Amino acid sequence: MPGVNRSPYVAVVGSGTATGELYELAREVGRLVAERGGIVVCGGLSGVMEAAARGAAEAGGAAIGILPDEDRGRANLYLSYSIPTGTGQARNLAVVCSGDVVVAVGGEYGTLSEIGLALKVGRPVVALKSWDLGGHVVVAASPKEAVERAFGAVRGVN
Amino acid sequence: MPGVNRSPYVAVVGSGTATGELYELAREVGRLVAERGGIVVCGGLSGVMEAAARGAAEAGGAAIGILPDEDRGRANLYLSYSIPTGTGQARNLAVVCSGDVVVAVGGEYGTLSEIGLALKVGRPVVALKSWDLGGHVVVAASPKEAVERAFGAVRGVN
Amino acid sequence: MPGVNRSPYVAVVGSGTATGELYELAREVGRLVAERGGIVVCGGLSGVMEAAARGAAEAGGAAIGILPDEDRGRANLYLSYSIPTGTGQARNLAVVCSGDVVVAVGGEYGTLSEIGLALKVGRPVVALKSWDLGGHVVVAASPKEAVERAFGAVRGVN
Amino acid sequence: MPGVNRSPYVAVVGSGTATGELYELAREVGRLVAERGGIVVCGGLSGVMEAAARGAAEAGGAAIGILPDEDRGRANLYLSYSIPTGTGQARNLAVVCSGDVVVAVGGEYGTLSEIGLALKVGRPVVALKSWDLGGHVVVAASPKEAVERAFGAVRGVN
Repeated sequence: MPGVNRSPYVAVVGSGTATGELYELAREVGRLVAERGGIVVCGGLSGVMEAAARGAAEAGGAAIGILPDEDRGRANLYLSYSIPTGTGQARNLAVVCSGDVVVAVGGEYGTLSEIGLALKVGRPVVALKSWDLGGHVVVAASPKEAVERAFGAVRGVN
Repeated sequence: MPGVNRSPYVAVVGSGTATGELYELAREVGRLVAERGGIVVCGGLSGVMEAAARGAAEAGGAAIGILPDEDRGRANLYLSYSIPTGTGQARNLAVVCSGDVVVAVGGEYGTLSEIGLALKVGRPVVALKSWDLGGHVVVAASPKEAVERAFGAVRGVN
Repeated sequence: MPGVNRSPYVAVVGSGTATGELYELAREVGRLVAERGGIVVCGGLSGVMEAAARGAAEAGGAAIGILPDEDRGRANLYLSYSIPTGTGQARNLAVVCSGDVVVAVGGEYGTLSEIGLALKVGRPVVALKSWDLGGHVVVAASPKEAVERAFGAVRGVN
Repeated sequence: MPGVNRSPYVAVVGSGTATGELYELAREVGRLVAERGGIVVCGGLSGVMEAAARGAAEAGGAAIGILPDEDRGRANLYLSYSIPTGTGQARNLAVVCSGDVVVAVGGEYGTLSEIGLALKVGRPVVALKSWDLGGHVVVAASPKEAVERAFGAVRGVN
């Protein structure tokens, strides 16, 4: 029955220009989230957003992209569903609200805003090679640890 | 391959307090959209939003609810996925942007705003027992006609 | 003391491409609002938005423009203050929330959305050569009548 | 002529629960901004937001508060103008977009989000007893230094 034993939503946030190592880390995060039955939510564009969606898709899971634009033209090709919001960077709030927990992989200024918004609305944040914010976020050393910590945090909340 | 032959998104909008006839009309719209392979998008709450999601679910299709709140507590039980935005009535913009076409079933003031926003961002609007706005919307007399017109409008766009 | 006997905020909404008669009607609305001590709020761009701000400025009053963009580059030159929101058409919600009452002058789809949003959040709407929405809005035949009705509606609310 | 030699907008962000020292620091920032002819923009509520508006008002300047709510009921009493947005924490984007520069005084998670959003949309950020983010923000040791740095940053931009 929906709402009772439902899959956790994991928002994966990070830079839209990530390539190389960060891209692979985010892809692994997406894969592991999907393997554990979680739903990946992201900002729908390229870089970390694409990588997380790709990892989820490769593991047979679902990935939802929440876009800043009025249309889905820039949606990456690995999303199960795309949600154009038309609200620009305010869509960052929707991304983190849609996660029961947030995993930040790398990240630049948009990611910093998402971490702040996530904490503001009460979502736990797991950071993987991301902003150093002291005890406000859970620091993970690997995708595996990040996803374990994320699922642990969701269990704590639900 | 995603992005090439993808399913159309149909945003179904209408009053959150609809019951009886309007509820059944929206449920039928949701069912018909799903049967034709479309994805239902809605505001995620009760009334027409619930009915459209329910119809889609009953036909084995997908329904995504985009919520005004910061959490998914008020999401109806028929959604495949829920997207809390934290942006209040501004989520109406995300609902209509997420549709390739919008079907309005009945509706009060929020629905009127969604019709205006949809037209503003270039989405065709099909109205079923909804606001009378002259030639600006396509008026349909039944769920069947509404969904046919909606899919026809999407083909015209894509 | 602020908050007790404060000036009413009047949101003036309408097409960004209005010229000629509609422009002059909106300018007169802005002038009359300012002469009665009201504050004009608008969407900050051209057309009706510029005209209302211009009328207010010409009468020595204040006009605040709430812009869809991330910066104030497109703000019209008659605003006392400009508020870039970065949220695209979602700024329409801020425009109507910022008015204690809304006056629609002419108007296209964006205006229709603003009327819907205004009614949704409980703001009375006065329509001057705008959308015909039956008894849901107060229809005025002139700028003078529109402003009288608007101030009357605010008194009713406050 | 507006738009040519205009006053700079300074967004002052910080915790809504600040009292004591942080409140007085923000009040001094608001006062100094106003004395230099700047316009204070803030989130419109209590704590640092109130203090900055109060300082500006006490120096005879203008303060604009951009509120998360649909109405202005929670606006602090020192604002020249209040802008209810109805978009919840997404109003943080409007606050920082409305500043040509952002001064963060103390601050909790909402402030962190505002710093991230400000940097994302290209606004320089001056931090006074706020988040330690390395070279991404300009750290100031006093209200006087914060305002000098803020006006210096605006000159650099304009």
